[in-house]
Amino acid sequence: MDLYFAPLACSMASRISIDEAGVAATFVEVDPVTKRTLGDGADYHAVSPLGLVPALRTDEGEILTENAAILQYVAERAPAAALAPEGPLGRARLQQWLCFIGTELHKALFSPLLDRKAPEGAKAYALEKGASRLAELDRHLEGRAFLLDRFTVADAYLATVLNWTVATPIKLDAYPAVATYLARMRARPSVARALAIEVPLYQQELARHAAKV
Amino acid sequence: MDLYFAPLACSMASRISIDEAGVAATFVEVDPVTKRTLGDGADYHAVSPLGLVPALRTDEGEILTENAAILQYVAERAPAAALAPEGPLGRARLQQWLCFIGTELHKALFSPLLDRKAPEGAKAYALEKGASRLAELDRHLEGRAFLLDRFTVADAYLATVLNWTVATPIKLDAYPAVATYLARMRARPSVARALAIEVPLYQQELARHAAKV
Repeated sequence: MDLYFAPLACSMASRISIDEAGVAATFVEVDPVTKRTLGDGADYHAVSPLGLVPALRTDEGEILTENAAILQYVAERAPAAALAPEGPLGRARLQQWLCFIGTELHKALFSPLLDRKAPEGAKAYALEKGASRLAELDRHLEGRAFLLDRFTVADAYLATVLNWTVATPIKLDAYPAVATYLARMRARPSVARALAIEVPLYQQELARHAAKV
Repeated sequence: MDLYFAPLACSMASRISIDEAGVAATFVEVDPVTKRTLGDGADYHAVSPLGLVPALRTDEGEILTENAAILQYVAERAPAAALAPEGPLGRARLQQWLCFIGTELHKALFSPLLDRKAPEGAKAYALEKGASRLAELDRHLEGRAFLLDRFTVADAYLATVLNWTVATPIKLDAYPAVATYLARMRARPSVARALAIEVPLYQQELARHAAKV
C-alpha cells in the first residue's frame, strides 16, 4: 500500500499504525502548501480531490481517504497486531473514540488553532468549546494506559493530534492525565520512530517555503 | 435499545437508521438547552458526560456515544437491512463517508453556523472552507442515488446534516446534485417519518424556551 502523508499532519497516525501492524507500505510525501507530491511534483488533487492527507492506495489500487477509515483498514489488514478490538461492541467503542478525536479534537479544536488563515474569533471559539472536551478526555485517561484496554489505532490518532498542542495556546498542565498519556505515547517505539522521521521532514517543509518568501 | 435524541439534531440519523433496520428502540428526548431528559427531568450528563446527543443504551446496558459509532452499531444489529456494505473495502468506504460528513460538514461547517454563540469570524471561516467540501460532495453525487451503491447509514447521516441548510446562509442552488439528493432523501419513507416526528418536537422545544424568556 502507498500512504500519502504530510509531515506531522494527521496522516502520522496512519504511519504509526502501519508500523505497529508490520505491513509493507510506501510513503509518499505531499507538500500541504503546493498540494504536489515531492519528487515527481504531481498534482495531489488527482489522488485526493480536496488535497487532504492521508490518502491510501491499497494493494488493489483503490484510493481511500479520511483518517478514521484508513486507520481501521490498516488494522483490519493485520489482525495479529490487534490494533482494533473485535466484536460489535469493541468495534463501536473504537469508532466512538475515532469519531471523538476526529470531530471534537481534530476538526473543532485543533484545525482552527493551527490554521494561520483562521480569524481570531474562530480560534477563541474553538479554545472555549475545546476545554470541556479536553477535561472529559482527561477524566477518561486517568488511571488508563490507553483509550481502550490496549493500544489501538485510536491511540495512534490521539497521540498525533495531542502532539500538535505545542503549536497552540493549549496548556496540558491543566489536564495531567492527558499530559502523562502524551509523554508515554511519545516514548512508544512506533510513535518515536514516526516523530524521528517526520520532524526533520517538517523542518524541511518549513525551510522550503521560507526560502520562497 | 434506547436512543437519546434531541429533535432535528444529528441523532435523527440514528432514528432513520433504526427505522430502516426495523429494530425495536425506545426514544428518549433530551432538551439540548437544559441537558435534561424530558418526562423525568433527569440530568443527561449522567448518560453522556458532554451532554451531546445521540447516545445509545444497548440491550446489554452499555452506553455508546458518537454518531458514526452508533450508526455502524445499528447497521450491524440488522444485517438483513444491508445498511452497511460488507468486506474490508466496503466498510472502509462507509467509514470514509461517515468521517467526511462528521468532520468536514457537521463539525467544520454546520456546527459554527448553527451555534448562536459562535462569533461572526467563526461562521465566515466555516462558510469559506465549507464551499469546497460541498462542491466535492456535489461532484460525487452527480448521477448517483446514494453515497454508495445503495442506501446506507451514511445517507441517513448526510440527509440529517443537509436538512440543517435551511437554517444557514448556504444556498444549495449552487450544488444541484446535493439539492436533488436532499429532496429525494426527504421523500424516502424513513426520513419522512423521522421529520414528521421531530419537526413538531423541535417546535415544542423552541416554544418551551421562548416561554421562559
